[in-house]
Amino acid sequence: MTYTDKLTKAVRSSGSLLCVGLDPDPARIPAPMRQIYSDEAELVFEFCRRIVEATKPHACAFKPNMAFFEAMGSRGWETLERVIDIIPSNRVVIADAKRGDIGNTAAKYSEAMFGHLGADAVTLNPLMGLDTLEPFIKDDSKGVYTLVMTSNSGAADFLKRRFEGRSSLSEYIAEELSKLQHRSAASLGMVVGATQTRDLSLVLDANPNAHLLIPGVGSQGGDITELTAVLENYGGIPVINSSRSILYAGGDSEEWMSASAARALDLKVELQPIMKGYAEEAS
Amino acid sequence: MTYTDKLTKAVRSSGSLLCVGLDPDPARIPAPMRQIYSDEAELVFEFCRRIVEATKPHACAFKPNMAFFEAMGSRGWETLERVIDIIPSNRVVIADAKRGDIGNTAAKYSEAMFGHLGADAVTLNPLMGLDTLEPFIKDDSKGVYTLVMTSNSGAADFLKRRFEGRSSLSEYIAEELSKLQHRSAASLGMVVGATQTRDLSLVLDANPNAHLLIPGVGSQGGDITELTAVLENYGGIPVINSSRSILYAGGDSEEWMSASAARALDLKVELQPIMKGYAEEAS
Repeated sequence: MTYTDKLTKAVRSSGSLLCVGLDPDPARIPAPMRQIYSDEAELVFEFCRRIVEATKPHACAFKPNMAFFEAMGSRGWETLERVIDIIPSNRVVIADAKRGDIGNTAAKYSEAMFGHLGADAVTLNPLMGLDTLEPFIKDDSKGVYTLVMTSNSGAADFLKRRFEGRSSLSEYIAEELSKLQHRSAASLGMVVGATQTRDLSLVLDANPNAHLLIPGVGSQGGDITELTAVLENYGGIPVINSSRSILYAGGDSEEWMSASAARALDLKVELQPIMKGYAEEAS
Repeated sequence: MTYTDKLTKAVRSSGSLLCVGLDPDPARIPAPMRQIYSDEAELVFEFCRRIVEATKPHACAFKPNMAFFEAMGSRGWETLERVIDIIPSNRVVIADAKRGDIGNTAAKYSEAMFGHLGADAVTLNPLMGLDTLEPFIKDDSKGVYTLVMTSNSGAADFLKRRFEGRSSLSEYIAEELSKLQHRSAASLGMVVGATQTRDLSLVLDANPNAHLLIPGVGSQGGDITELTAVLENYGGIPVINSSRSILYAGGDSEEWMSASAARALDLKVELQPIMKGYAEEAS
């Protein structure tokens, strides 16, 4: 099955474009969990397990953020392996790794993310050049999402500046990815921030059929109504990520799982206007 | 002790600017080792242990390449933890991670690399903006090496193109790092490829006092004589990395450790012209 097929099925079976970001910060995990599990790795695993359980009816994808697991070293990686194992096979797993390196190093990262962890897709950083993406796009059952436009203030340092006559380096990267897509069977998606809709339009015009991973909805403040307008008539599948707004929706309440589930459901409903044809075509 | 102090002492006590890159590829580990250790993680650990043992008289630094450990998942991370533990404390450990992410994610990567792994320095990717470096430069006992100019062919895609009136995006990044260094107590180094000396000169002019991590000597073909000329009168400490040319110097010979030691010694000697004042000032 190609990555696009798997993603399409996940969107249809969940009826949702929501991606739940797994950024488990032990200090913010609800107190009722912290009281049960004193071991940090076990706490993180059990928290993620419950988040997956609570939100899977409302999400097409889960995006583990590697940094939050690596902060616990090898035990964190072991925890991540266990978390990925319990994500249902009809949902997509996107390893948020933002790796970017050359030749044999990139091949080893590909082996780590796709081979060892078994992720369906990975986020990548293109700064060192398009050849750094090659080892990740040999297999059309796997997807990549390349950093194109981010929503942090630092995006102004490089990504938003004019480049090669284009409005921004982001727009130029999107064009280059579009060209590379013509030579590749694999799915070459883009990571694009949701907070600046005018910039987003320019980037989408440069590469109008790529799948999108859109962070910045929820805690980071992206506006779903504006996003809906920008994505109208867009060709790829846009997956919209929210992490903290779902994970920590219930604070330290005993009912934190219900709060996370309710927040995920709210987002799923808010995202319905973007769904367009995906849900209607569901079998 | 600041990172600069630790690096200076490591250079003086080893009399060397050589960094040994630890990119342990199980398929290329010498046959005599593969015959002893059937478990891949154990094989990698024992190989790295012997490489550190054989080359430490000739190197100021060791640079584990995260990808080669991550390809083995949590066991790879565990192996990396063990490898870092046996690197002598009077040598510098540079985690070659090339991470780059925002706010709380960057903070978690910093916790992973400096806190958990105990690396002295880390390589970073600046594409998402200078704010992504902040969590790594709060502590002057730790160093960072930011990707500025790489030696792969893909460097032509973005890094080598004109940017903001400068000769290249690389030059612009170097300038921005120089400005950031004025506001930071931590050591803000640069990763610069050794293969294009003219481009290297422009980048160094833009940021003439940063420490350097220079890959591309050995297997990747950087010329040490040209490099010596470019680095003359340069203010920072240039650490020159070689990985495969040292690790696999002996092929499958029983004498592979001696071959790796000899290759490291050769490189140490070849790099002496660059040493300038460092060795003479050694106590």
